[in-house]
Amino acid sequence: MTEPSKSLETFPNPAPERDYAIRMTIPEFSCLCPKTGQPDFATLRLEYVPDGLCVELKSLKLYVWSYRDQGAFHEAVTNRILGDLARATMPRFMRLTAEFNVRGGIYTTVVAEHRAPGWTAMAPVELPQ
Amino acid sequence: MTEPSKSLETFPNPAPERDYAIRMTIPEFSCLCPKTGQPDFATLRLEYVPDGLCVELKSLKLYVWSYRDQGAFHEAVTNRILGDLARATMPRFMRLTAEFNVRGGIYTTVVAEHRAPGWTAMAPVELPQ
Amino acid sequence: MTEPSKSLETFPNPAPERDYAIRMTIPEFSCLCPKTGQPDFATLRLEYVPDGLCVELKSLKLYVWSYRDQGAFHEAVTNRILGDLARATMPRFMRLTAEFNVRGGIYTTVVAEHRAPGWTAMAPVELPQ
Amino acid sequence: MTEPSKSLETFPNPAPERDYAIRMTIPEFSCLCPKTGQPDFATLRLEYVPDGLCVELKSLKLYVWSYRDQGAFHEAVTNRILGDLARATMPRFMRLTAEFNVRGGIYTTVVAEHRAPGWTAMAPVELPQ
Amino acid sequence: MTEPSKSLETFPNPAPERDYAIRMTIPEFSCLCPKTGQPDFATLRLEYVPDGLCVELKSLKLYVWSYRDQGAFHEAVTNRILGDLARATMPRFMRLTAEFNVRGGIYTTVVAEHRAPGWTAMAPVELPQ
Amino acid sequence: MTEPSKSLETFPNPAPERDYAIRMTIPEFSCLCPKTGQPDFATLRLEYVPDGLCVELKSLKLYVWSYRDQGAFHEAVTNRILGDLARATMPRFMRLTAEFNVRGGIYTTVVAEHRAPGWTAMAPVELPQ
Amino acid sequence: MTEPSKSLETFPNPAPERDYAIRMTIPEFSCLCPKTGQPDFATLRLEYVPDGLCVELKSLKLYVWSYRDQGAFHEAVTNRILGDLARATMPRFMRLTAEFNVRGGIYTTVVAEHRAPGWTAMAPVELPQ
Amino acid sequence: MTEPSKSLETFPNPAPERDYAIRMTIPEFSCLCPKTGQPDFATLRLEYVPDGLCVELKSLKLYVWSYRDQGAFHEAVTNRILGDLARATMPRFMRLTAEFNVRGGIYTTVVAEHRAPGWTAMAPVELPQ
Amino acid sequence: MTEPSKSLETFPNPAPERDYAIRMTIPEFSCLCPKTGQPDFATLRLEYVPDGLCVELKSLKLYVWSYRDQGAFHEAVTNRILGDLARATMPRFMRLTAEFNVRGGIYTTVVAEHRAPGWTAMAPVELPQ
Amino acid sequence: MTEPSKSLETFPNPAPERDYAIRMTIPEFSCLCPKTGQPDFATLRLEYVPDGLCVELKSLKLYVWSYRDQGAFHEAVTNRILGDLARATMPRFMRLTAEFNVRGGIYTTVVAEHRAPGWTAMAPVELPQ
Repeated sequence: MTEPSKSLETFPNPAPERDYAIRMTIPEFSCLCPKTGQPDFATLRLEYVPDGLCVELKSLKLYVWSYRDQGAFHEAVTNRILGDLARATMPRFMRLTAEFNVRGGIYTTVVAEHRAPGWTAMAPVELPQ
Repeated sequence: MTEPSKSLETFPNPAPERDYAIRMTIPEFSCLCPKTGQPDFATLRLEYVPDGLCVELKSLKLYVWSYRDQGAFHEAVTNRILGDLARATMPRFMRLTAEFNVRGGIYTTVVAEHRAPGWTAMAPVELPQ
Repeated sequence: MTEPSKSLETFPNPAPERDYAIRMTIPEFSCLCPKTGQPDFATLRLEYVPDGLCVELKSLKLYVWSYRDQGAFHEAVTNRILGDLARATMPRFMRLTAEFNVRGGIYTTVVAEHRAPGWTAMAPVELPQ
Repeated sequence: MTEPSKSLETFPNPAPERDYAIRMTIPEFSCLCPKTGQPDFATLRLEYVPDGLCVELKSLKLYVWSYRDQGAFHEAVTNRILGDLARATMPRFMRLTAEFNVRGGIYTTVVAEHRAPGWTAMAPVELPQ
Repeated sequence: MTEPSKSLETFPNPAPERDYAIRMTIPEFSCLCPKTGQPDFATLRLEYVPDGLCVELKSLKLYVWSYRDQGAFHEAVTNRILGDLARATMPRFMRLTAEFNVRGGIYTTVVAEHRAPGWTAMAPVELPQ
Repeated sequence: MTEPSKSLETFPNPAPERDYAIRMTIPEFSCLCPKTGQPDFATLRLEYVPDGLCVELKSLKLYVWSYRDQGAFHEAVTNRILGDLARATMPRFMRLTAEFNVRGGIYTTVVAEHRAPGWTAMAPVELPQ
Repeated sequence: MTEPSKSLETFPNPAPERDYAIRMTIPEFSCLCPKTGQPDFATLRLEYVPDGLCVELKSLKLYVWSYRDQGAFHEAVTNRILGDLARATMPRFMRLTAEFNVRGGIYTTVVAEHRAPGWTAMAPVELPQ
Repeated sequence: MTEPSKSLETFPNPAPERDYAIRMTIPEFSCLCPKTGQPDFATLRLEYVPDGLCVELKSLKLYVWSYRDQGAFHEAVTNRILGDLARATMPRFMRLTAEFNVRGGIYTTVVAEHRAPGWTAMAPVELPQ
Repeated sequence: MTEPSKSLETFPNPAPERDYAIRMTIPEFSCLCPKTGQPDFATLRLEYVPDGLCVELKSLKLYVWSYRDQGAFHEAVTNRILGDLARATMPRFMRLTAEFNVRGGIYTTVVAEHRAPGWTAMAPVELPQ
Repeated sequence: MTEPSKSLETFPNPAPERDYAIRMTIPEFSCLCPKTGQPDFATLRLEYVPDGLCVELKSLKLYVWSYRDQGAFHEAVTNRILGDLARATMPRFMRLTAEFNVRGGIYTTVVAEHRAPGWTAMAPVELPQ
């Protein structure tokens, strides 16, 4: 799996005094199956708590496109994209979910997380529904 | 990002002896992209536990409209609206979720919370479903 | 807000030896806006853990109807109905959710709880889904 | 409320070394309203962690049918069926949910649980979604 | 219940330094009812945290097919498949859910888990929704 | 199949000068399988264009209940109920749809129509959607 | 059934040269059952092809409210509202659908149409879906 | 493709004086791919207007099971089942729809009809929705 | 209602030898209420059969934005946009549907069509579903 | 737009004596925008009435993949794929629908049909629903 050429850009977090969550859903991820060369399709769901940096939307789009001609196994590519995004933005917390289309009658989803050392989530407030 | 001109009005909380939750869904938020001038659209979801004051519905509607001609980045505008609402009502707890329409094939949601110092949520009661 | 004339009736809890939950959904609540006289509509969701008494279904229906000509603000009427139901049945736990129809482009939901002093919920059993 | 004549049959739990969950959904429960004689309809949802015995599916079907001509209040019949099922299978944990059809514009659901003395659920593993 | 002939294959976990989750949904499981010989159909949902090995997708498909002519009770076959998968991949955690089609008007789901001795899940991070 | 004892009542059509449609959905039909004695459940959907008479709602409910202890095949009972309703109300047009719950893994729906001799439907107006 | 006091207002059709359709959905209709005094609730769906006049939205809202304290049978009230709307706007075509909430376990919908003498709908263009 | 051994049984149409419709949905069809031996899964939807005979439900279930070990292409097997059902029941009209599960990322549905010579459908009555 | 300044651009129809359909859904239309100045929101649905010209997507987006500060009644603005699009592309057939958000508890949809003189739609082919 | 290199393969129609329908849904079409080079994604829906030939599923999959690196406008590529499929299979009737993902806030769908000269569809049989 060679390196995608596009780089991820960032901008300063406008509210670093707070832990808050950013969610991005990217329904148009596509790469190639390393065994068969067949195109694979997935929806990526990214969730993160920014620290000093937020990921810039347009560069994220270009980064995601850069996988279009890459061979990539489901488990490996999810962990790699998470790693790239975490290195670029150094978030307090980040989770990436990749929901792949059916292959051989089986649907696969991979979920991986990154946590900054020493960071802990605030106790959540569960308001009654 | 200049200041919206409309002010938020409040009324006294009719049940201050209790921690209870108010949820408001506002599907008609619109502002402008600061880079391109393109209209952006979002659904705002507000949840709060009032202390002495509740936000008045009509003034909330006018406050939300006041962003229509403002340039505003997703992450910044969500944190700013939360700040304005928290300053106006001084709630025990407040959470604002802004779900933006797709841009560049990517859907973005931002969620931020305010907690009054010293306030803690009651342990939730989870009745079996 | 004058007093609705209908009274809530009860019957003995057939299984007081257990903490168990009763949920009632009432999609036909209607009252009047105190400012404009405009009819307001809501779905009420009641959940409770009975102690000695259960609320009788037909009297609950009549009680709910008695608000039809009452002026009532969203936050106040939810807390008031919860109070009336709690006084009538003295439950171990009770939660009332009122989901109001859209007004001025904004959807409002109010959720309030009553807990009997000294009562604590059993630790919930979360079976894997 | 007289006794239904059908008895519940069981078979040995094939994996007693584990705490695992069995869920059964029975959308065809019907009994009679004791006040009016009107048929009532409900969907039953049964969840349990078996110990030595599992409930046999066909006898469960016949047991459920045996209520067809019984008068039964919502709260009482749910607790009674749970009791019968718990006596027959002596489970580590059992929960019964009865979702009744609308009556008088109100939808009622009753949820009751049985826990074997001394049994505690394993801490649940929540994998990220 | 004789042994299915197909063996499960594995490949090395590409990110063993992390606890991360793999989910696979297999809507095409079919076996036979041991009493009546009638075909049974189920959707299998597999979730696991890999340790050294991941299950290979194509061999999983063939393994699942191998039950097509096997007689199998719901509770027993779910526990057996979980056992086979856990032996083959030695995961940190694994959960198998089998949702069977309706039989006799009753829908049955069985959920079983395997946990590696000494492994504990990280405290989950619940970002506000 | 003996005769249900309840009779259908009617009231005068308040707008006989028009062809207009009345639809009634009755989700709580239950009868018995003549072969096995097993309860069968169906949702009835009635549509009609009244002539001089409309069917009275409460007597319709009682009529439907009267099948609860009747043995009835799917195809025969649908045609019979249609016949009874058509004799009672002498409509310009009537259609009855009976959607039965799954039996033996198969879902059955039966649809039958009655048309008054000489009556023809107006050409429908299809407004663009 | 006495006369509601609110009158329907109109404004000139801005495009009388065309046959075009206006649809209005009014989920908040409520009247009283003439037999029991019980509130009834319905969703009204109005579709029309205007000729010289369109119905003004605010007066329509007030007209609908005026039924709140009126006793009204389902079939009669639907035909009456259609008549009032047709007299006020003299449309080329008008259809009113009233979907009433469940009563006695039965859901009732009434649909009535008005056609201007001599008007015929254009042959519809069905584009392939 | 050899002959399935199970025969279809019938019973006399209880209402031959009418054209009416019977619909059956069979979500549990399975056969084998003739090229790869892989199991294929489909939902069958059968609609027919009976003449002298109706298809008996239990024999239909057994007939459908008899394909479980047959190799069958999608287009051929749909036409063959339609032929068998039409020969057994000699209906006025029959339509069979087979919706196959995804294979190679493509979902296939096949729909075929049989019409008795000389039979024509009544002009349908489209009541306004 | 003054004239929006943006012009609609077109490109040559790549398949003028055929009648075929283009559908565009534009969920982000916003204008102002001429009475109150309140923002209105709608989803536009455009369907057309092109003749010599197709509407260019980016110019359509800009044209739609140009209404953001225009006062516009529902019925008038739908007919006007249809007129502008028809003048720009001279289609064989065009239909515009505007689904407006709720105002005063009422949802309004307006649908208007343009047909080129002398053009008639091909008889549609309805394949059995 | 250069020529995709993969060819479509066919097999003989197993039931040429009948007009019947084959539907294929292909959710994984991707090509490139000729202006920006941006990947475009669409779901293709193919419906046809075969004459002598059916399209072979695997070659269809490869044909669809061959567009992955092609620049293609929405309207043109839909008409071209329809042309290729019609030339390869010479069907009695064929319809292709391409539903493209949102671009610039606008969703586009293109639908085109091919009809064999002289072929007419049978009058459809609409069974009452």
